[in-house]
Amino acid sequence: MNQLEVCFSPALYPYRLIKNDFTAVVVDIFRATTSICAALDYGVGAIVPVAGMDEARKYKNQGYKVACERNGQILDFADIGNSPSDFLKEDLKDQTLVFSTTNGTEAINLCRPDAVETFAGSFINLDALAKCLAARNRDVLILCSGWKKLFNLEDSVFAGALTEKLLQTGIFETQCDSARGSLDLWQHAKNDLPGYLSKSSHRNRLKSLVSDEDYAFTLNTNCARAVPALAGGKLVDLAKS
Amino acid sequence: MNQLEVCFSPALYPYRLIKNDFTAVVVDIFRATTSICAALDYGVGAIVPVAGMDEARKYKNQGYKVACERNGQILDFADIGNSPSDFLKEDLKDQTLVFSTTNGTEAINLCRPDAVETFAGSFINLDALAKCLAARNRDVLILCSGWKKLFNLEDSVFAGALTEKLLQTGIFETQCDSARGSLDLWQHAKNDLPGYLSKSSHRNRLKSLVSDEDYAFTLNTNCARAVPALAGGKLVDLAKS
Repeated sequence: MNQLEVCFSPALYPYRLIKNDFTAVVVDIFRATTSICAALDYGVGAIVPVAGMDEARKYKNQGYKVACERNGQILDFADIGNSPSDFLKEDLKDQTLVFSTTNGTEAINLCRPDAVETFAGSFINLDALAKCLAARNRDVLILCSGWKKLFNLEDSVFAGALTEKLLQTGIFETQCDSARGSLDLWQHAKNDLPGYLSKSSHRNRLKSLVSDEDYAFTLNTNCARAVPALAGGKLVDLAKS
Repeated sequence: MNQLEVCFSPALYPYRLIKNDFTAVVVDIFRATTSICAALDYGVGAIVPVAGMDEARKYKNQGYKVACERNGQILDFADIGNSPSDFLKEDLKDQTLVFSTTNGTEAINLCRPDAVETFAGSFINLDALAKCLAARNRDVLILCSGWKKLFNLEDSVFAGALTEKLLQTGIFETQCDSARGSLDLWQHAKNDLPGYLSKSSHRNRLKSLVSDEDYAFTLNTNCARAVPALAGGKLVDLAKS
């Protein structure tokens, strides 16, 4: 039986029980991993996740298009921010983009040295992702990006939704209290996800910066089929490769 | 309005939003803080919390009675372990005990340099504790001890129970997703706390070591009136001092 574990924050990652031979799923619902899923689903060729602003700036100077924000605001040298709609542009199709965000990219870079494969997860690719993970038949670690290393509701509730899907396959089990807790939060949230997450602190922080359309998009479950996976330092759509 | 924040693990403590002028509530339901509450309620004079085994051994050599376990098992040099019933002994009345446990004491020592006051919380002293915290009229940080730095269900559900009590006073509010999440877990758990927590990983780990009586005792809400508070490096009963 494959094990399933949830980390509610990058700060908890060093203490995880699953250490070897696992698939990592990085989650940053508002908005990094949602945007990555949306971008690859739309047809962006590849996304290079970088943690630091200096690194993003270097790529920019090499001619790459760069998506970069901090605390929800686009940086001056960047071409776009991390709103999902920023990525759905004709001139970005088949291009390689560089992407640095507050929380999401940091989490991706944290687990990539340890994981056999690293995927990006969001509500918009939930079913496609669950299907891929089941086909792998390997332990799964869901890593929530959190907010400045703290637990957040939106990533944790998504972890519960994915946990439910994976346990339903019958080839996963969990001894992880975070997975069980996230499953219970998901039961609270599932019948009115936008209503439930409107009380999230991060949603309130971003309210002045994120449009209602963006908010609704991040919770539009299964509108995308892309499964972003790290390959050679880039996120590419596993469904197409 | 006073702020309320929950940390699900000592590993999240450095990233907390409340930094100054707060009361800390340390929680280790299975079983350190439950035992501390039970001991002081019974009449033990004071408890010195120490993190390391070497420190506990030093106290033992100085003639103190020592309660010490690791991973649920009593250590060879210790007088007792950390079962609540271990503390309810006539010869311990009015004595100063030294107490070192896997998770609980570590959390107490983590927040004591920052907090104005540090209390020990458990289901058995929930109402007495909430009353004291409301009387303080100061920000509150609930620090869950977790299990080896990981989130656990029993401490988190207790955080939700205490959050509910404090919000009901009308003098606390929260912007903390962990507090909101813990409140929702508590709604799941409250009607059958023993049933809910029987799925906790820690309960299952301790099953062979902890009696059913101990388990039932830790969830026996409001059976104690003691509010353990740190004073001069010792935990004493605030209700008596």
